[in-house]
Amino acid sequence: MNQSADEQGDAAASQCEGAEGRPRGRPGRRTGPSVTRERVLSVARARFAARGYTATTIRDVAADASVDPALVHYFFGTKDGLFAAAMALPVNPAVVLRGVVADGPEGLGERLVRAFLGVWDDPVSGPALVALVRSAVTHEGAAEVVRGFMGNEVVARIASVLGRPDATLRASLAASQLVGLAVARYIVRVEPLASADHDSIVASMAPALQSYFTGGLEEQHR
Amino acid sequence: MNQSADEQGDAAASQCEGAEGRPRGRPGRRTGPSVTRERVLSVARARFAARGYTATTIRDVAADASVDPALVHYFFGTKDGLFAAAMALPVNPAVVLRGVVADGPEGLGERLVRAFLGVWDDPVSGPALVALVRSAVTHEGAAEVVRGFMGNEVVARIASVLGRPDATLRASLAASQLVGLAVARYIVRVEPLASADHDSIVASMAPALQSYFTGGLEEQHR
Repeated sequence: MNQSADEQGDAAASQCEGAEGRPRGRPGRRTGPSVTRERVLSVARARFAARGYTATTIRDVAADASVDPALVHYFFGTKDGLFAAAMALPVNPAVVLRGVVADGPEGLGERLVRAFLGVWDDPVSGPALVALVRSAVTHEGAAEVVRGFMGNEVVARIASVLGRPDATLRASLAASQLVGLAVARYIVRVEPLASADHDSIVASMAPALQSYFTGGLEEQHR
Repeated sequence: MNQSADEQGDAAASQCEGAEGRPRGRPGRRTGPSVTRERVLSVARARFAARGYTATTIRDVAADASVDPALVHYFFGTKDGLFAAAMALPVNPAVVLRGVVADGPEGLGERLVRAFLGVWDDPVSGPALVALVRSAVTHEGAAEVVRGFMGNEVVARIASVLGRPDATLRASLAASQLVGLAVARYIVRVEPLASADHDSIVASMAPALQSYFTGGLEEQHR
């Protein structure tokens, strides 16, 4: 760590913070704000790993990084954005999910599996997500972070639109199907799933996911 | 490795092989046959890791271990039994699965998830399976072995009873749901799935799995 660069970073970031939400300089250049940004991310990774996703707040991270919480919000939006950046994810899964669940439970199975395949088959975000899952499966610290993120951002968000008493369990089961799709298709690469095209997967998986969301509501259990 | 112990092991195992399928001595004692058995397992692990599940034969393993293939069959039954023993699994998933699929596709979703939860929540076989999944997710050699086992013993076996053109893809999707259940419940421990009782999981997951097996056959796609 270069202490004087960090201090310059703080100074630049403070100016940046006052500039009505607009960064100075070009995003690609390693200027002051990007040094501060990296420091916030490094602190966030340590906090997430030590305390998990749920117990970590923007305020804590800001305090650890000696910056104003407004600056963390300015850089990363809300906690899920900070998480995505700290885990080096090129997309924020929570943002993708917000779009997918916005239209309610009808057709959610199909929208979810299509969006999931889109992000995981993307050549940039796919490998980053594979790295995150590998890490969550082998390191308890990373598992704790992913567990909290899944609970707060994925399971809770899906459950919120289901409107039924067992919504949270059903949302966690649907999430488990997506985790299994990720592991079987992209990590262990079980055939024919690993080579199947999106339409074939959607045709069979959308009804299975949908049964978690609306199964037993408009039809009797068989 | 103790060479002379191995040689004694071979001699004892040869006697054992002639004894009409009955081992001499008590299973818990480290006598000759158990030394040979360990050597076969060590060779099998190396073969599975180097060549994968599909390309490994009992004959190859026997040759590598300088024993008669009949002895390997005598110790481990078929290749799936050798695999389970080599991976230190206290149960052979292929044997459990054979029992589950024997009654055909009707009700298969429920039988499958109940059997799966039984094996994974077992205090002996559960941790061994967690170790196998962790290893498959992080090491390509182990992934290759698990991929071959899943394809040959799990996906093919489920597909064989479905009797429909897309049976193999559907079987691999069902397998992915079980992989996801394992990772989300037992490894990452996403709530409320991690703490849910078997009946609650079965009530929601059995219909989802069943939709892979018989969905779209007796009802129109909604």
